[in-house]
Amino acid sequence: MRPALSALVFDAYGTLFDVHSVIAMCEELWPGKGAALSQLWRAKQLEYTWQRSLMRRYENFSLVTGAGLRYACSALGLPLDEDRRRGLMNAYLNLATFPEVRETLAGLNAMKLKLAILSNGSPAMLRPLVAGAGLRGAIGSVISVDELKIYKPAPAVYRLAVKRLRVPKAAIGFVSSNCWDACGAKSFGFRTFWINRGGAPVDELGAAPDHVIRSLAELPPLVSRN
Amino acid sequence: MRPALSALVFDAYGTLFDVHSVIAMCEELWPGKGAALSQLWRAKQLEYTWQRSLMRRYENFSLVTGAGLRYACSALGLPLDEDRRRGLMNAYLNLATFPEVRETLAGLNAMKLKLAILSNGSPAMLRPLVAGAGLRGAIGSVISVDELKIYKPAPAVYRLAVKRLRVPKAAIGFVSSNCWDACGAKSFGFRTFWINRGGAPVDELGAAPDHVIRSLAELPPLVSRN
Repeated sequence: MRPALSALVFDAYGTLFDVHSVIAMCEELWPGKGAALSQLWRAKQLEYTWQRSLMRRYENFSLVTGAGLRYACSALGLPLDEDRRRGLMNAYLNLATFPEVRETLAGLNAMKLKLAILSNGSPAMLRPLVAGAGLRGAIGSVISVDELKIYKPAPAVYRLAVKRLRVPKAAIGFVSSNCWDACGAKSFGFRTFWINRGGAPVDELGAAPDHVIRSLAELPPLVSRN
Repeated sequence: MRPALSALVFDAYGTLFDVHSVIAMCEELWPGKGAALSQLWRAKQLEYTWQRSLMRRYENFSLVTGAGLRYACSALGLPLDEDRRRGLMNAYLNLATFPEVRETLAGLNAMKLKLAILSNGSPAMLRPLVAGAGLRGAIGSVISVDELKIYKPAPAVYRLAVKRLRVPKAAIGFVSSNCWDACGAKSFGFRTFWINRGGAPVDELGAAPDHVIRSLAELPPLVSRN
């Protein structure tokens, strides 16, 4: 019998916050190239977090995100002037939440669960994001990897949530739309929920998520059943 | 004035050994899908090395390569039976070298440089590869990350070459076609040569390679000038 969950920790980008508006802006700036650009940008952004963590050359997520954008534009031959760069980086600070987020978080709060965000984002990126979406009341703790100077999926990152929430790890549920992030959290010892919005296969990392769901709206009944 | 180089350390896959035959076999097995499959397979293979290193869940490169193949086939809806899986994994053990490799290594040996391979590949993958290409005489040391249980670009990996070759790191040149690998080696302290066969931009990791060349054939004159 598993212990009941007393806290839920959410990834930010792609999980609570929809990066669609950034993709739309890429397409607006370079018609026909938006999809390729946002895909390569995201891929490089993540690669750089892993590579810099292993190299022990941490830089904050804003810098890494900007570096990924420069690389992607350069690789695709898209001219990136300062206005466009600033516009795209600002779009990251002002993302919409997925449609089911507000109601789901309200339901989970009503169940007396502690709610937190645990993100690669730097505090300076997360603060306007959470405030702009009106989630400051719904989310008790916003935790950034920045103080550790290492990125997900290092175990130290997930341990940070245990310390900040003061809840044993077996009583923490971790929710991410990034399968490798859910696998990292599972490997650390959280109960994990992978939001598989795109119908992708499970990543083969030897630590599969406990639950695979299609939307955050499936969380409250799943959590109350445990 | 930089110290003269007394050793050159080479990455294996994509640097000395051409993975083209694996790509060709993907296309043969699934006509029209070969390029997409080999691209996703390679991407997942690398992601898993970084993610498993950060998660501290090392498994050897053969296992990680097989996991990447399963993921890629599943994501693309390509049925992978045991025959096809074995065929593709075996192709990895028997790769051709790039055309300029043999002559370049002979030239570097004539210059009295110590030559080594430093690879993510497990010893069981590297042994048949080096023997099959007839490079056992040309390459003095074949070094695998496997004994460390962590993958590139962790500094410990590059340090392993220093220990095994007994040459100070400032006198070691590191050669890779993977820009992030060259950046990792540069960050550690090697003199680095990025073989940029595809004309890609430099990765933005805060440690750019010292030299960007198009083929291994450019190495001997570059090294002798230093």
